[in-house]
Amino acid sequence: MKFQVSSELAYQVYYPSTLLINIHALRLPGQTIIEETFTIDPYIRVEELISAEYENRFIRLEAEEGTHIRVSYTAVVDTMYKEVERAQLEAVPVGQLDGNVLPYLFPSRYCQSDKLGRMAYKKFGHIGNVYEKVMAIIDWIYENIEYAGGTTNSQTSAYDTITERAGVCRDFAHLAIALCRALTIPARYFTGYSYKLKPSDFHACFEAYIGGQWLIFDATRLAPLNGLVKIANGRDAADASIASIFGNVSLTYMSVSCLSLEENFVAFTHQDYYNKGLALCTV
Amino acid sequence: MKFQVSSELAYQVYYPSTLLINIHALRLPGQTIIEETFTIDPYIRVEELISAEYENRFIRLEAEEGTHIRVSYTAVVDTMYKEVERAQLEAVPVGQLDGNVLPYLFPSRYCQSDKLGRMAYKKFGHIGNVYEKVMAIIDWIYENIEYAGGTTNSQTSAYDTITERAGVCRDFAHLAIALCRALTIPARYFTGYSYKLKPSDFHACFEAYIGGQWLIFDATRLAPLNGLVKIANGRDAADASIASIFGNVSLTYMSVSCLSLEENFVAFTHQDYYNKGLALCTV
Amino acid sequence: MKFQVSSELAYQVYYPSTLLINIHALRLPGQTIIEETFTIDPYIRVEELISAEYENRFIRLEAEEGTHIRVSYTAVVDTMYKEVERAQLEAVPVGQLDGNVLPYLFPSRYCQSDKLGRMAYKKFGHIGNVYEKVMAIIDWIYENIEYAGGTTNSQTSAYDTITERAGVCRDFAHLAIALCRALTIPARYFTGYSYKLKPSDFHACFEAYIGGQWLIFDATRLAPLNGLVKIANGRDAADASIASIFGNVSLTYMSVSCLSLEENFVAFTHQDYYNKGLALCTV
Amino acid sequence: MKFQVSSELAYQVYYPSTLLINIHALRLPGQTIIEETFTIDPYIRVEELISAEYENRFIRLEAEEGTHIRVSYTAVVDTMYKEVERAQLEAVPVGQLDGNVLPYLFPSRYCQSDKLGRMAYKKFGHIGNVYEKVMAIIDWIYENIEYAGGTTNSQTSAYDTITERAGVCRDFAHLAIALCRALTIPARYFTGYSYKLKPSDFHACFEAYIGGQWLIFDATRLAPLNGLVKIANGRDAADASIASIFGNVSLTYMSVSCLSLEENFVAFTHQDYYNKGLALCTV
Repeated sequence: MKFQVSSELAYQVYYPSTLLINIHALRLPGQTIIEETFTIDPYIRVEELISAEYENRFIRLEAEEGTHIRVSYTAVVDTMYKEVERAQLEAVPVGQLDGNVLPYLFPSRYCQSDKLGRMAYKKFGHIGNVYEKVMAIIDWIYENIEYAGGTTNSQTSAYDTITERAGVCRDFAHLAIALCRALTIPARYFTGYSYKLKPSDFHACFEAYIGGQWLIFDATRLAPLNGLVKIANGRDAADASIASIFGNVSLTYMSVSCLSLEENFVAFTHQDYYNKGLALCTV
Repeated sequence: MKFQVSSELAYQVYYPSTLLINIHALRLPGQTIIEETFTIDPYIRVEELISAEYENRFIRLEAEEGTHIRVSYTAVVDTMYKEVERAQLEAVPVGQLDGNVLPYLFPSRYCQSDKLGRMAYKKFGHIGNVYEKVMAIIDWIYENIEYAGGTTNSQTSAYDTITERAGVCRDFAHLAIALCRALTIPARYFTGYSYKLKPSDFHACFEAYIGGQWLIFDATRLAPLNGLVKIANGRDAADASIASIFGNVSLTYMSVSCLSLEENFVAFTHQDYYNKGLALCTV
Repeated sequence: MKFQVSSELAYQVYYPSTLLINIHALRLPGQTIIEETFTIDPYIRVEELISAEYENRFIRLEAEEGTHIRVSYTAVVDTMYKEVERAQLEAVPVGQLDGNVLPYLFPSRYCQSDKLGRMAYKKFGHIGNVYEKVMAIIDWIYENIEYAGGTTNSQTSAYDTITERAGVCRDFAHLAIALCRALTIPARYFTGYSYKLKPSDFHACFEAYIGGQWLIFDATRLAPLNGLVKIANGRDAADASIASIFGNVSLTYMSVSCLSLEENFVAFTHQDYYNKGLALCTV
Repeated sequence: MKFQVSSELAYQVYYPSTLLINIHALRLPGQTIIEETFTIDPYIRVEELISAEYENRFIRLEAEEGTHIRVSYTAVVDTMYKEVERAQLEAVPVGQLDGNVLPYLFPSRYCQSDKLGRMAYKKFGHIGNVYEKVMAIIDWIYENIEYAGGTTNSQTSAYDTITERAGVCRDFAHLAIALCRALTIPARYFTGYSYKLKPSDFHACFEAYIGGQWLIFDATRLAPLNGLVKIANGRDAADASIASIFGNVSLTYMSVSCLSLEENFVAFTHQDYYNKGLALCTV
């Protein structure tokens, strides 16, 4: 499925600063970048970095004091999702997990799974099937956490949200990840462009490792799952934030869009989850 | 109903210290102290204090460095509880609450009701009747919080317990109080001697203000409600701890007991709650 | 010293609500109310309440759905402060504190002194004199906490501020109180009108019990201490907030002022503290 | 410098469990493993895993219900440390950091650097040289945090320790790491065997990235820096715990030792830090 994604960020720079900007679509077997353009105005030399596990492409740039910079990214991306039958969605025992999946079992900055063990077990421990456990988690979050802008900030974590019961997509994802890990289900943070997200913005959701693959889930129900174009994975937002600033700048403008370039888009919605899982193709 | 209550605390004193000991049964209209003895060995002059609102009697004593002191209290107390019909148990609107009840609507050290608003409202807000709300709160706590010694300490608060899901009577009471206040139901902490509590110890539970009176509730279901002899009320354990130490002493021994002096004790149990409330008589 | 204080609050009422409004100047031996006017537009019947310990006067009003109400208070208040020589400012041992002072030794919602013990002792424990301890506390807060609007909210407590190092007058007071109590110095929250505070607003600071009296302190250094007109005392902001809302209203307007009615006002500033303490007269 | 390290862990297994045991010395340019033995009694097939960035070797084993297993590791390890002149210890700007160093700038589960920014800047921001900054951090920690077993647990994080002011080596390391990252100094967790540590145990400290290399630091001052044999690096203890248990087992025995096999060991102590840095050789 082809999407045209684009984003634009503008910053006022008060002091010489280094920015790590994480808005490029990832190159993955199931996500082909057909074309992409990245520009900075005024021109600054930038460097593209790829993290060790290929779960993250980002650019690093040095911004001079007193400048106003504008970063733009546009890409045409072809994504291939596969639907996975429920019958194949069994848990992978810890003893058989790939070494590179294991880190996603441990607690992280915004996903304190070590503090949620009793609660997760009490609420979801009785559910036998792992896929149903994750579904129960996201349904519970959807029903119990109020989606409300302005109620949280960049320091809000799953431990706050589980009690304060409000947040945005980032908080929904963090809480879901923490609950999964508390139940020994590997889970990782996902940021991306999202088709039909309203209002248009970057989106955050998560992937859980089930049946030998990373299935995508979204507790917010705000957009179709197969309309996502992946920017990054990480343990949580500490690894995969859109922009990390070292210095002193302020964001003065942001726009994000994601358009479908094909006419036959059939949304894979929350309802479809109940029948089958969804994952980016891996070959 | 007559009870013989007694407690004994021993302390090793490492440094000149002031102790506030809060183990005396309260003198109340519904709780008559027939006889009581308080001794300290070796003898130290002590002072008895009563707090401004009569919700607390305690003794203050100065312990000298290097001593080992033993504090003993015994009393025969006659308590009169009344059962209150469900029909009388309507909420008192904030606009009609007595001024001295209002403080029990506000958050306190261990009962951060201000942080539990959304959660309380989501879980219990749909219940129309105030008595049923409180019953739903204590049933939920009983079912979701594990009673487990050693999981919490003197700094543990309702905000911790709501997520960590384990604790002792103090934690059960704090969480219940916080949830009540979050729903605009006045609630206060209660410490006392408790008949049939196993193992024998001081007990903590709480009272909620419904239908113009302070009804007693206990989310732990550990002992009959009408076997309680009240020691103190407070906003939470910060106001009503058994002992407050200023200096450096260690507790070397503690025993607590509560015996019935009558044969016809009929326990008012958790099951009875569903039919009628219980309160200490106030006249 | 005579001051004219006034405040005006307006609320849009979305749902039938009860408001507790705490903007009246207290009647105290050292604070005489020469005249005062309180109006509500449109007229609603209100009730004036005084808390048990006389540390709080407030009005309770019932606001109807769909109304817009405007609450105005004006008073001429004569305050008498006394300066206290340093020589008289010795600590009162816990063993000699009045019973009604003891509650101000315990932790409260926003002043978790029980969590700050080691830190307070390490930083201030070596200072022998109690007055110097409190001075060291407020100097340390002034130097280490950034006064910055918008960094905190109504849930922020001393435990947050000690690490996050930013806040407003309320947060400065909470942190100072928590540190005092951690060192066994009784301390209570103070709200008031404040002459020469810029921008004009309600102010919060605190009192510590030293030498047998409640001395006033302000870690913000924003206004002269002897220009304060007391509205309320409390353990912290949970007891003494300007307005407590039960229902659903939004604040649409607020103005506060405090003018001197005499010409010879001589500010008692932070610098004067180092020489002598200040307290409202108590006879 | 040759060391003989050994450790033994025994577990009672209540339920089929998977264990990740992280007690092997790392193979590194500056750390040669001359010989090593790893045994499990009774014999179970185990699997050795190495994490993607080679910062972690661990074994995974499946333990059967009702068994009692004993894991033993012994190795002779030759470590080569280099001393680094202060003149070479300049900060590497974020713009020039290697991509694989960047993750160590971000907050993690136990090192919430995002919450410590103001505090770190206020306390250490004025120090120009990065090495002096880190020295000031560990000196401050040593002077202000009480080393006290039993005061913390596996959920304790830097955000707790900064206020509660007590902990063990793990807590000292987490706090130091959080403060470094808050000042844009990459820092990572280090676990190892430690010569002359008393009582003998696994040790935790940290490395900071300065002058293009990972220098080792230890805020506890409990053992010589050049007596460390590295087991693992990680963002914090979530990545590098000695044992991660999935299932239900209890630790019944643990012993750890680290002996020098050469006679000329000259301790590189805290005092030596002030003159030069120390790092494991990287070639």
